[in-house]
Formats: sequence, C-alpha cells, structure tokens
Amino acid sequence: MHQHVSLSVSPVIGLLTDFGSHDNYVGVMKGVMAGIVAGVTFVDLTHEIPPQDIVAGAWALGTGYQYFPAGTVFVCVVDPGVGSERSPVAIHAGNWYFVGPDNGLFHFVLAEQPVHAAVKLTNAAYHLPRVSSTFQGRDLFSPVGAHIAAGRQLHELGEPLEVATLRRLDRLQPVQKPDRLEAEVAYVDHFGNLVTSIALDLLPDFFDRPIVHLLLPRQQFIITERRRFFADQENAEEPFLYVDSSGYIGIAIHNGSAARALGIGRGEAVTLIWRDA
Amino acid sequence: MHQHVSLSVSPVIGLLTDFGSHDNYVGVMKGVMAGIVAGVTFVDLTHEIPPQDIVAGAWALGTGYQYFPAGTVFVCVVDPGVGSERSPVAIHAGNWYFVGPDNGLFHFVLAEQPVHAAVKLTNAAYHLPRVSSTFQGRDLFSPVGAHIAAGRQLHELGEPLEVATLRRLDRLQPVQKPDRLEAEVAYVDHFGNLVTSIALDLLPDFFDRPIVHLLLPRQQFIITERRRFFADQENAEEPFLYVDSSGYIGIAIHNGSAARALGIGRGEAVTLIWRDA
Amino acid sequence: MHQHVSLSVSPVIGLLTDFGSHDNYVGVMKGVMAGIVAGVTFVDLTHEIPPQDIVAGAWALGTGYQYFPAGTVFVCVVDPGVGSERSPVAIHAGNWYFVGPDNGLFHFVLAEQPVHAAVKLTNAAYHLPRVSSTFQGRDLFSPVGAHIAAGRQLHELGEPLEVATLRRLDRLQPVQKPDRLEAEVAYVDHFGNLVTSIALDLLPDFFDRPIVHLLLPRQQFIITERRRFFADQENAEEPFLYVDSSGYIGIAIHNGSAARALGIGRGEAVTLIWRDA
Repeated sequence: MHQHVSLSVSPVIGLLTDFGSHDNYVGVMKGVMAGIVAGVTFVDLTHEIPPQDIVAGAWALGTGYQYFPAGTVFVCVVDPGVGSERSPVAIHAGNWYFVGPDNGLFHFVLAEQPVHAAVKLTNAAYHLPRVSSTFQGRDLFSPVGAHIAAGRQLHELGEPLEVATLRRLDRLQPVQKPDRLEAEVAYVDHFGNLVTSIALDLLPDFFDRPIVHLLLPRQQFIITERRRFFADQENAEEPFLYVDSSGYIGIAIHNGSAARALGIGRGEAVTLIWRDA
Repeated sequence: MHQHVSLSVSPVIGLLTDFGSHDNYVGVMKGVMAGIVAGVTFVDLTHEIPPQDIVAGAWALGTGYQYFPAGTVFVCVVDPGVGSERSPVAIHAGNWYFVGPDNGLFHFVLAEQPVHAAVKLTNAAYHLPRVSSTFQGRDLFSPVGAHIAAGRQLHELGEPLEVATLRRLDRLQPVQKPDRLEAEVAYVDHFGNLVTSIALDLLPDFFDRPIVHLLLPRQQFIITERRRFFADQENAEEPFLYVDSSGYIGIAIHNGSAARALGIGRGEAVTLIWRDA
Repeated sequence: MHQHVSLSVSPVIGLLTDFGSHDNYVGVMKGVMAGIVAGVTFVDLTHEIPPQDIVAGAWALGTGYQYFPAGTVFVCVVDPGVGSERSPVAIHAGNWYFVGPDNGLFHFVLAEQPVHAAVKLTNAAYHLPRVSSTFQGRDLFSPVGAHIAAGRQLHELGEPLEVATLRRLDRLQPVQKPDRLEAEVAYVDHFGNLVTSIALDLLPDFFDRPIVHLLLPRQQFIITERRRFFADQENAEEPFLYVDSSGYIGIAIHNGSAARALGIGRGEAVTLIWRDA
C-alpha cells in the first residue's frame, strides 16, 4: 500500500513558520515531505511566529536548533519577500541543515556555527513540478528539505553561494563598550518575560559583579536585582534580571508579565551597565 | 517494553478535526492508533476547523490530500450528527484512504478522484471494545484508520456502499454560464484572503482574457485587477484577484485582510464575468 | 548523516505541558529526545493546560493515558514549583511510564494503576550536561523520558521512592454518602461542557435509577434529565446530564456552552443525589 521502504536511519525534520494552525499549510508541507523521505520524525519548533516577523523567527530557530540531533534538517518559512528578490537557500552549518529564504532567518546559525556549504536552490529537479508564486514552503522548501533528509548533497540542489553574502540581522548584535552593552529586547515569551539580545557569554561573570544595572526606555528606575531561580520569593512585585533558558539575559516578574507591567515590547533598547563597586 | 515490531513500510496517517488543541482529544486518537499500527507518521492537516463546519473541513481536506504519499490514510472528524443518521464510512479513492462520517466532508475527494471502494463501518471487530456515543473519533474512526494503515482491506471493515450514495456538497460546484461563473467564497484563510469556489481549471485562460470582472455582494465596485505575484507593489490598497496556492481564484489585498477590508465572509456569493474586449 | 540506527521497536512518547504553541519550548524538548531515541513517535496530549494548573494537567493525562500502547512514556510538565521543593520523578504504573514533577500531576494514574516502581531523578548522567533553573522540561524530564523509551530501567535513573509518598489531589476524590456524591467540576472542555469528578463507576446504574438530581451552586433549579446521546433533540435549551467520553458524568446543553449558560467553572461544588422513587 505504501510506496516507500523504511530507511535504516531516522531522519528528523524541524519546521518553523508563521503559518499558524488555522489552515492546512503546515500539514500539506509534511505531506509533501513524507512522500519523499520515509519514516521521518517531524518536529514543529513553532508555527506561531508573528506574520512575516523575521527577527522572531530567527530567535525561535536560534535558541532551539542546537538541541536537535546531528543531521536534523530545518525547513523554515517566514518570508515577507516570497517571490521577490531574496534567494531560496540551503545551508549546511555545524551539524545541521537549514532550508528557507535568505532574509536573516538564519542569523544566529550563521553567527554561531561554521558554514560548510550554502547553495541557492536553482535545481528544479528537486522542487514540485509546478512551483506556485504564493506557497514556496510547499512547492520548493519542503521537497528540498526532504531530499536533504533522504541523503541528497547540497551541491546537487543548486549553485554554490559565498557564505559572506548570506543575510544577517546586525541589530541583534549588542554594541560592546568598556562598562556597558547596548542591546535590545529580542524576544517576549508567552509568560511576558523580556529576553534581551545579551548572551550570558558576553558577560560570563554576570552573577558575580558587585553592581549590575539595566536601563530601560521610559522608566524612572533601573533594575538591579539578579536572581538565579524564579522561585525566589522576595520582592514578588519587583522586576528582576535572570538568565533565560535560551542563555540570554532576561527581565521577569515573579508570577507576572514583565512586558505588561513595564509596558515594554520587542525591539526596544536596553543598556546593561556594570561597576566593580 | 514495546509490543509492536516495526513494519518495513512507513504508514502515514493524516488527521483533520474540529477538536482544537485545548483538550486531549486529538492526542488520545493518536494514542489509539499508535497501539494498532507501529512506526506511523502522524500529520495534522488542521484541528482548527470551526466547530461542526463541514464545508471548511471539506475545503481543508480537499486542498491538501493530493500532496500526501500514496497509501496515506486520512482520519477526519467534523461531525455535527455524531450518533445520528449519517453513516461512518471508509473510502478508497485515487491513491488514498479516507475515514470519517459520510456528511459531505469528502466532497472534493469524490469530485476529483475515482472511488475504488467504499464501506459503512459496521464490523465492530475493528472498533474499540466500547464505542461511546460522544467520541466516535476515538472509538471508531481512529481504530479503523489505523487498521487500514496496517494493511487491512476495506471489505473487511463493513458493508459495501454505492458510490453514488456518498454525500456531496453541491453548493461548492459553481454554476457555469456562457460568460460567467456563479460561485461563492469557499474559504477565508488566516491572512484574510478570500478564496472562491472557482478552480482555475474552470477558466484556464484567466490571466490571458482581456477583461475579467468579479462581482461581490454589497459592494459599489467590481474587482478587475489580476496579479500573478503578491509582491507586485502597485495599488497597495486595492483588492485584486490571484490564483491561490490551492488552485482556486482568490481575492486579496497586499499586506492586509481582504475579508476585513471588504466585510465579506465564507459562503457569500461571487460572480466572475469575462469578456473578450 | 544521522547518528542513530533505527530500533526494531517503535517507541511512543506522549507530551503534556502548559507551554502553549507560541514559543519553541515543546519543539526543543522533542529535539532533545530525538537525539537520544531514534524513530520515536511523538504524540502531543495537549500543551494548552492553563499555566501552572496542576488539576487540569492531571485531568488531561488521567483521561487519556489508558488509550496509549503499553510502553508509552509520558513526559509531563505543569510545574509551578520548578526549582523548588517538589521532586522530579519517573513512575512505572500499569503498562506505562510517567516522567515529571511529583506535584499531583499523576493523581489519576496513581489512583487507577498498580505502581511497579518510582524513582527520584537524581542521576545526572541521564540529564543534559547543564540543567537550567527555568527549563527542566528540556534539561531533565525530556532526556530522562527518552532514555526510558530507549530501554533504560527506572532504577538506573535515581533513588527509589515510596509509592505512598507520591503526591495525590484528594479534592478530586468525591465524598460518598448513602444517597449522594459530593464532588466538583473537574474540567470544562472547549465546547463548554462541565465534566464532574464523578466517574460512572461510582454509580454504575446511573441511567437506570428512577430519580437522579444534580445540585449546582447559585442555581434556582436542579438538573434531572439524563441523556445517552447528544443528538437527542427535545428541550434543546435545558441542561442535561450525560456520560462524558472520559467516563465521568458531565453537564451539557445541546449545541451550546453549559459553562457559559450556567455561569459555572472548574472547581465548583456539585452534588449528585439519587432516589428510588
């Protein structure tokens, strides 16, 4: 009844889109892929990226991909420019493969991993026979991702690209000064925690510095408290700094939404200042 | 620890319901199926069909099934008449299998594919031991779907049905006249695009006709512009016609919701008129 | 390309959390697990448990687990006390395995199944190398669940626990009196049906008793009607009693929301009274 013989390996395909769950779009993408590679395990990173929000997509991918097994193929579609100038690409970086539009969605991957190969997806033999102008996720990115999961090499899929030309989102890179980091709120999670673009790696002694101040826009105060655990109960009403599970410094309120309490959203400027006494 | 030996094939089961994601209903259906057929790949088409909306369910299935591999079994539950007169059925049509209530949900499949066999699900040996009156998705459709995915033949599952008796939704078939098609809005996607029941196949030279007009209810104007790409930037505020990724003619507004801008919803009449000059 | 060889069995991992679908948290948990056990079938029970609502989590698990194949591992994270006093545990009960915080989430499992083994997850060899204080779902529960699915024995994962010490939710156990059961609304499903904590097993002749009354708080009336089928059409406006697909007695209104019509929510008291004439 089924036309595919099971492989002796277990490919994993991760999906990330802004398609939501109302339409059948994500299901159809998986249908296309299941017809190309058998026995695949699909994992949805999220499909709730705000429509066409490349920064949010880059964040959701960038704080998750490193937890997946080597060989995982990520098919990512957050694509305001569908059908226009940006290139459809496949990238082999670190131990993983990434397929999607070259529009900044792969910012963190490119910043963190060595890129072994990158191609522009010009070989139509690996696309659906008829590529629509409005649903490249189904017609182009899905079949290419499935062919990679089935063992196809990147150079078969299109023309090689210079790694330096791949699109990054420079604004997500904090500006480093001797006593401060100028950064922004990179993500607001569904609890309302504000996660900054400051990776703990940029200030490894974050918890040991005598004084650390976070400046926020439009606020009469600075945040000075640092907590290692959410369950710490003192000053339940006060916002505090913590290290988010993503590895970035965040702002939270115990059992509340820092975003709502502070009236601050994604993209707003934050400055982290430290002193020795 | 596990009682199932892996098959050498990789069955795919697609699911479509109006159960949403709040309850454990869809998960329980998959649990039932995983106990019958091992190593299955589940693909959710969508579970966000508006409650008991058969037309929306038929659309989500009808614009998606053809992208799945041959042998895929679709278990579909949008079922206002659960426990009443409609029959629970399994249908082998084209290269796929469909399980669910015979209430119009399979309209597009029946309109587009040759039906090889159809049965009423009367053989209780393939149901759960105790079939509840309120959750046939779990107790009846899921086990039957899993048994089909495991290789069971349709004639084992119940009594044969005449194909002509299977329920269709005639209103989704546009009325063809010499210079026009009288149709309706069949679907509103989550971007607010209005997708009509007019398949491009009904007017294959859609883009080449000198004049094409779309009439909408309660509007002082007609839509005359046709676009092949969403990214075309002229007249950003004006609604335009396009060919949806489903293959049907749709109405969109660049970076906006046509449904909201025009105040038009699912089921409303549209008329497509063409002239040669 | 992939580092795992397929097993000859097909492990199933069920997931239950309050993480929602907005963030990448659930996807990352699956990524961690896919890196430990190959060829796994993931089944989401639900991720829409209201934040930190242990009772709702216990209900969603308790009314679903028994439909899954023997050997299924459930990884459950509804965890208000993350990082605090409750223990992370793994439990082998009935034919299934359960991993998560010992906070009452496993109430129904413990009430219904023989417990073969339970351990506190103290063996860090089966956790991610660095366990964050805020995301134990990823760093602790996921890898432990995957190791169990891959065949690891419970005693390898930590220190044995006395079964009697495992946390239950006593309030979900109705008080039995000669002519009545004092219980509560245990769950409100997405149709607005009110499901009580009264299992049909507590009153097996529910449909055959001459008189059954349900008392609700703040209502001037009692509910006396019992229905076996939702499709029964008489008195469409009146609330009625039915047996929910979960096996518990519920309160519904035909094609409406009993929760909204009656103004009653989760946790409110209900009393079921019966008489012989």
